[in-house]
Amino acid sequence: MRIAIAQLNYKIGDFAGNYAKIEKAIVEKAPLCDLIIFSELSLCGYYPMDLIDSADFIALQDETIAKLEKLTEDLKTSVVIGIIDKNKGRGKSYHNSLCLISKGKRLYTYDKRLLPVYNIFDEARHFAPGNKPGVTTFEGVKIGFLICEDGWAGEDNILYECNPVNDLSTLAVDLIISINGSPSNIGKQAERVKHFSPIAKRCHAPLLFINQVGGNDDIIFDGASFAVDAKGQLQGCMPSFQESVGTLAISNKQLTLNEEFKPYQAPTECELFYQQTILGLKDYVSKCGFQQVVLGLSGGIDSALTLVLAVKALGKQNVTALSMPARYSSKSSVDDAKALCDALGVTMIIAPIEEEFSLCLTQFEKNFKQKPSSLTEQNIQARLRGRILMEYSNQTGALVLSTGNKSELSVGYTTIYGDMTGGFNMIGDLYKTQVYELAKYYNQLHPEHAIPDAIIHKAPSAELAPNQKDADSLPEYDILDPILKLYIEGDLLPKAEQKQYQDKIQHLSKELILKVHKMVDNAEFKRRQSPPIIRVQRRAFGMGRQVPIAAIYPYPKG
Amino acid sequence: MRIAIAQLNYKIGDFAGNYAKIEKAIVEKAPLCDLIIFSELSLCGYYPMDLIDSADFIALQDETIAKLEKLTEDLKTSVVIGIIDKNKGRGKSYHNSLCLISKGKRLYTYDKRLLPVYNIFDEARHFAPGNKPGVTTFEGVKIGFLICEDGWAGEDNILYECNPVNDLSTLAVDLIISINGSPSNIGKQAERVKHFSPIAKRCHAPLLFINQVGGNDDIIFDGASFAVDAKGQLQGCMPSFQESVGTLAISNKQLTLNEEFKPYQAPTECELFYQQTILGLKDYVSKCGFQQVVLGLSGGIDSALTLVLAVKALGKQNVTALSMPARYSSKSSVDDAKALCDALGVTMIIAPIEEEFSLCLTQFEKNFKQKPSSLTEQNIQARLRGRILMEYSNQTGALVLSTGNKSELSVGYTTIYGDMTGGFNMIGDLYKTQVYELAKYYNQLHPEHAIPDAIIHKAPSAELAPNQKDADSLPEYDILDPILKLYIEGDLLPKAEQKQYQDKIQHLSKELILKVHKMVDNAEFKRRQSPPIIRVQRRAFGMGRQVPIAAIYPYPKG
Repeated sequence: MRIAIAQLNYKIGDFAGNYAKIEKAIVEKAPLCDLIIFSELSLCGYYPMDLIDSADFIALQDETIAKLEKLTEDLKTSVVIGIIDKNKGRGKSYHNSLCLISKGKRLYTYDKRLLPVYNIFDEARHFAPGNKPGVTTFEGVKIGFLICEDGWAGEDNILYECNPVNDLSTLAVDLIISINGSPSNIGKQAERVKHFSPIAKRCHAPLLFINQVGGNDDIIFDGASFAVDAKGQLQGCMPSFQESVGTLAISNKQLTLNEEFKPYQAPTECELFYQQTILGLKDYVSKCGFQQVVLGLSGGIDSALTLVLAVKALGKQNVTALSMPARYSSKSSVDDAKALCDALGVTMIIAPIEEEFSLCLTQFEKNFKQKPSSLTEQNIQARLRGRILMEYSNQTGALVLSTGNKSELSVGYTTIYGDMTGGFNMIGDLYKTQVYELAKYYNQLHPEHAIPDAIIHKAPSAELAPNQKDADSLPEYDILDPILKLYIEGDLLPKAEQKQYQDKIQHLSKELILKVHKMVDNAEFKRRQSPPIIRVQRRAFGMGRQVPIAAIYPYPKG
Repeated sequence: MRIAIAQLNYKIGDFAGNYAKIEKAIVEKAPLCDLIIFSELSLCGYYPMDLIDSADFIALQDETIAKLEKLTEDLKTSVVIGIIDKNKGRGKSYHNSLCLISKGKRLYTYDKRLLPVYNIFDEARHFAPGNKPGVTTFEGVKIGFLICEDGWAGEDNILYECNPVNDLSTLAVDLIISINGSPSNIGKQAERVKHFSPIAKRCHAPLLFINQVGGNDDIIFDGASFAVDAKGQLQGCMPSFQESVGTLAISNKQLTLNEEFKPYQAPTECELFYQQTILGLKDYVSKCGFQQVVLGLSGGIDSALTLVLAVKALGKQNVTALSMPARYSSKSSVDDAKALCDALGVTMIIAPIEEEFSLCLTQFEKNFKQKPSSLTEQNIQARLRGRILMEYSNQTGALVLSTGNKSELSVGYTTIYGDMTGGFNMIGDLYKTQVYELAKYYNQLHPEHAIPDAIIHKAPSAELAPNQKDADSLPEYDILDPILKLYIEGDLLPKAEQKQYQDKIQHLSKELILKVHKMVDNAEFKRRQSPPIIRVQRRAFGMGRQVPIAAIYPYPKG
């Protein structure tokens, strides 16, 4: 049997657009394959959230399925595709399903049995679990089906009542097809291979893992679909972070992969961050109907990194930088920003805020009969800049990128309505130390447009008060970041990595660690008003970390 | 058996504070009762979200349970209380449980069987469902237990696989105890009585419904605990929106209620809005550690209503109003605002933005070599005001209240970082027409501090452009609001009410309705950065309505 795997980039709810992509893949590959496989919920795009509750949404999907069925009427190629299917039994109204469509008819439907409800996932909100193993015989091949989480339970995972893999292992299948909407984050592809290879081995059947690609809001899918042989050996991966349709043949449980499949090479953290943030921005901009972005360029590392990534994602002609110096901005900051923009060929507009800032201070005294505190003064400057960015956005339709990193968003070292202003944040899931790493990685890759050394080597400063340095208010980042990493994501880290971070902070006082935890907790109100942040770590702020604001957090004791 | 029902106001994660309240209720009522009952997850407060995943959180709870057990050692009074209990089986690590504690020992534990995962609820994220009916015999009384959702399934509700009420109905119980963390919204108490009264009748046993009270972020609990006799007749309700401990006796399935229980009188919509927003603000302010609030008072109805409600919640000494007129502000707007503040005894600071606005316009031309568009100009004014509110907040520690209503938040007729600025929004779940209704209701209640007629009767205007009226950009609110209501909450309305709204919009063109729907969809990016909004309707923006930003929405066809 000749099979094609389509890892495509879907837009949520864009049934016409998604169908057009799917149709194109089918028509192109029809001469080359008997079966073409698309990813989880591919017709509607993963994950549509509460749009699923809309009858119009379902009606549009069902019309699109009918179109797809019609398309296959005269084809020799059959289709496996992820859909929302009506649940006729008890529970939520729909299943997260796949169906096998052949010659105009739906031959088989399988309903996902394990519905993830943790981290960014909330599938039990919309779907009822299926209750039957996924297995059917198609053209003489006994195929076992899994939908994403179905394959993640593992033999000793007690999170679920059943394990679909156990069932498949007793059914003597010839091939396992796993369709997925599997978001990308650090270490994810290695985990996928680690989890899914033993499934193939256990079932004595090759396994195909099909994923979607592209960014949907803050969640980025990397594709990287792969094939494992019946012995559990990874045979090849399709490209990461790009659309691709790969083809292969299976005969007597033996796979023959075509050239779209390559040996897997684990990306470094920086490679992953780089690809993921670029694709994430590109897709958010295009899927929301923007063309242009604008950002404030302070001369610091965060905005410099955001700028270079945005240029890689969108092209220099679609990125504008605003330099908005005031009295505490160092001359070098503006110069460094200018040097970077010149190297990149990006338009930089200088919009000094000094005059407005002076007027604000005067007006403040008139209005409130007192002098502004240092905190007030600092925030005024950040908010003047935020407003000017929004002026540019209102005037031109450009999307404002906010440039806060995960370290400052964690501890609240950021001004709400100031530097947090923006519709999207590329680097908000990178700790400050990772921002530096990624900047260095970028510079190696693009020495011709390098971020100037001066930006990389200056001591981090918000430049909102005389001679201000981040280190005046915060621990040094190489101390702060491990504390944050363990507090925010510690439970999700592989044991060895957890230990690494613990070793880094073990010499610190409990008081310091507690102080940082409190800063994180107290800043929840700011993060609640943050724009979407491209998710790259195992746990990002947003849906992946849902905590109350008005609460006393369970600070570690003693 | 003499029973006390404690409907208390808990702070999330405040084990020490919550325990102190619980202890006080027990000690006070111990001479009067054999059993005292607390609400769902009362030790930690409902709903702690992902704090449940913290080992420290669970450890603190378990220590508190141990303290509670110790407290009962020498008491004749036993305790039923909602706790997080370890799940020893498959699935999530914990159960949402209740336990019966008597003389220092935990006699019985029941695990909630139906876990809501819809609207604001996401309990399957943290809990495994129980699988046994809740029943135990205590001092000769056979008690059946339900935890909130357990009682909501109804006989014909197919959402769940099992129905705990069916089980109780076969167990010949003498009494049903239902503990709840049941949020308040329009029509909720009537629905509770409608759902739970038949349970008592069906089981031939009286039923006690115990709820918590108070605001936790945007979700407000109204208390209103009640008792139903074995025939399914409502016997009495405890107070709404206040803490109370009620006592009653049960003998041979007959209830005798003490004076804390009153006949139930359904509140009007306005009564509910009034009580709920006031309690919501009061609790958010105190639970977050604020004392003071500040808001921008435009002379329009939204900010006027927010002001009077805030004064009722916090006292005039804790509320400051800023009037921030500019060139398009009518003189009457400032005068009306002043008149209201004078009547209330609230400090109003006048902070004109005209000078800054002029400078912004000049600077804009200098920076961007063009004149600002009308949209840009309008937003500049709103954002200057937002910044000045934040200056006051930074300087004094006052919480900024944003004053947008649900109509404008729905269609995006609001400036992000401008009038959306704030840490909390009291009226953001009220449509504009409801804002007027509530203002009139308030005026009847408090004629001495009435919102001036001039504010109520002027045509709605943002006053950001010459002679601007809301009606220039939006349909009139009596047309807009029914469209919005149906689009946002239609599926949750009782049939009759749904019909009422449909009748109101049936004469409108499909184009107009579609246009409004698109406005709602396109404004999702703004709402994502909104502060918490006190929830009063069946579906509010926030966790109750989770939709993607980068999506094509399934607009109604034709």
